[in-house]
Amino acid sequence: MTQLARFRHAGEDRLGVIHGDLYIDLTKAYAGAQAATGVANAAALANAVLGPDALAYLQGGEASYAALREAVAYAASLDPDAARAAGVTVARADAKTLVPVPNPPKIVCVARNYGKHAAEAGLQVSEIPILFPRFAVTQIADGDPIVAPFVSEQLDWEGELAVVIGTGGRHISAADAMAHVAGYTVFNDVTVRDFQFRVAQYTGGKNFHASGPIGPHISLTDEGLDPHKLRITTTVNGVVKQDANTAEFIFDIPTLIEHISEFVELEPGDIIPTGTPAGVGFKRTPPEFLKDGDAVAVTIEGIGTLSNPVVDEVRGD
Amino acid sequence: MTQLARFRHAGEDRLGVIHGDLYIDLTKAYAGAQAATGVANAAALANAVLGPDALAYLQGGEASYAALREAVAYAASLDPDAARAAGVTVARADAKTLVPVPNPPKIVCVARNYGKHAAEAGLQVSEIPILFPRFAVTQIADGDPIVAPFVSEQLDWEGELAVVIGTGGRHISAADAMAHVAGYTVFNDVTVRDFQFRVAQYTGGKNFHASGPIGPHISLTDEGLDPHKLRITTTVNGVVKQDANTAEFIFDIPTLIEHISEFVELEPGDIIPTGTPAGVGFKRTPPEFLKDGDAVAVTIEGIGTLSNPVVDEVRGD
Repeated sequence: MTQLARFRHAGEDRLGVIHGDLYIDLTKAYAGAQAATGVANAAALANAVLGPDALAYLQGGEASYAALREAVAYAASLDPDAARAAGVTVARADAKTLVPVPNPPKIVCVARNYGKHAAEAGLQVSEIPILFPRFAVTQIADGDPIVAPFVSEQLDWEGELAVVIGTGGRHISAADAMAHVAGYTVFNDVTVRDFQFRVAQYTGGKNFHASGPIGPHISLTDEGLDPHKLRITTTVNGVVKQDANTAEFIFDIPTLIEHISEFVELEPGDIIPTGTPAGVGFKRTPPEFLKDGDAVAVTIEGIGTLSNPVVDEVRGD
Repeated sequence: MTQLARFRHAGEDRLGVIHGDLYIDLTKAYAGAQAATGVANAAALANAVLGPDALAYLQGGEASYAALREAVAYAASLDPDAARAAGVTVARADAKTLVPVPNPPKIVCVARNYGKHAAEAGLQVSEIPILFPRFAVTQIADGDPIVAPFVSEQLDWEGELAVVIGTGGRHISAADAMAHVAGYTVFNDVTVRDFQFRVAQYTGGKNFHASGPIGPHISLTDEGLDPHKLRITTTVNGVVKQDANTAEFIFDIPTLIEHISEFVELEPGDIIPTGTPAGVGFKRTPPEFLKDGDAVAVTIEGIGTLSNPVVDEVRGD
């Protein structure tokens, strides 16, 4: 199990992997491993290969993964107290979780990708995937507050599995697609429903400030996880609202990658949230929406749980 | 008139301003100006303040503009031959034009923002702006080929004025909005019509590879240009297809900025293409589409002309 995560410790944003109750700081561990073999510019090299914003890792392909393994092995070879003192490991309890990829080239969301959700929304299954954007700046980390905007009373949850692209490309066939995936994470495509439907394009309703929880980490594909057999649940204040399985996808991950790359170049670090299952708030009887003080959690089996409180927007935010 | 432009010369991507038939290389000119006053790390400072990807300029606000003026004054103070020899100026004829902002945080496009275009498309004026995304990777520069994809025969032009954001923010009022604009450029929102309408969301049809010509430069707001009184024309092979004036906007620029920043944080370098006027190909009788060998040009009065040839996609592209 390799879980890639970004965290803030001692005022710095770092890239790590989860190791029990510790983070291994990948940049520092790789620099240490390189310095131990006599490399002169180890710190600069480590920053280029396993730099803290995760994009260098995702752009590096198999070489990145090899560097990650080397960094982890080096960290494991150290005396635990020495590793902690050198900053090669950090107690997770002492760190703040960050958005896994703060600067994805694009986030391409999928609408209506579970049959039951399409049915509850009264909509047909589409001939091709329905795609809309999420702007990177709307991403928030595990634990960060979802902001309920003062312009709406219709803030809704949408638990989703998100695919993180490693190797980019165009005209990627479904047969080759899975080799382009670096890993998976959990996404909550929090939606302002009235804004979403004021005009035909979803851009506004899907891109409110602080409405895109993602994380807490990326489960790399070395885990051998089958992304099409994962239970996904969303709870609000502990009550299950969505409970489905990614086996219900209308368009599976290879089909999504083939379709998107038919028109646009996929790039390392791109994120594809795969759509939400039935059980969203606005189609419940009576409709339910998120409000200040609520706690939302999306859990995907084998990956993890993404938890966020909801707070009212404050004028001047 | 200050026209900010990116160009490639001697294998390097540079940031400049247009000065007759020359570019002034802003990074090199600013470094020269700083070095002349005894600054030790002039090159590093220049890269941070007026670095070649234009984002540093756009993020720097008034300090950036002051640095630009300083760089231009320094370049003008040099002997022309010495300036050329030092790379502080470059003949435009020797350089390739690049996309003005290759890495905008987001590109938020506006649909149906001219009344006659809405009418030709048989659509009502919307209550609020209709927004859809353009992914940065689809941008191409002035002179670069628009690729006609082999999956469609319906490649259409859409000449547009694009706003480039300088100062970001949320909840920007229409009254304050124009102070957030760094400048204007020309955009051709080339659209694959059949893809656009295969599903309700425009994402695919508006994001084909090499379908987003933009430039050739950014006209900074110091020019005193009134963006709401500009003639905009699109020609295909020299024949006028669109001929309108930005005075016809349904939602003017302050309204667009107020609306977008109501939901999402605007960031320096964001681009807002403001919509296309009447005269697109798919609503002509009979419909007309772009094909291999065509030449498309969008001209906006007071800004410039964006010209691109059309070439067929080659398998393996």
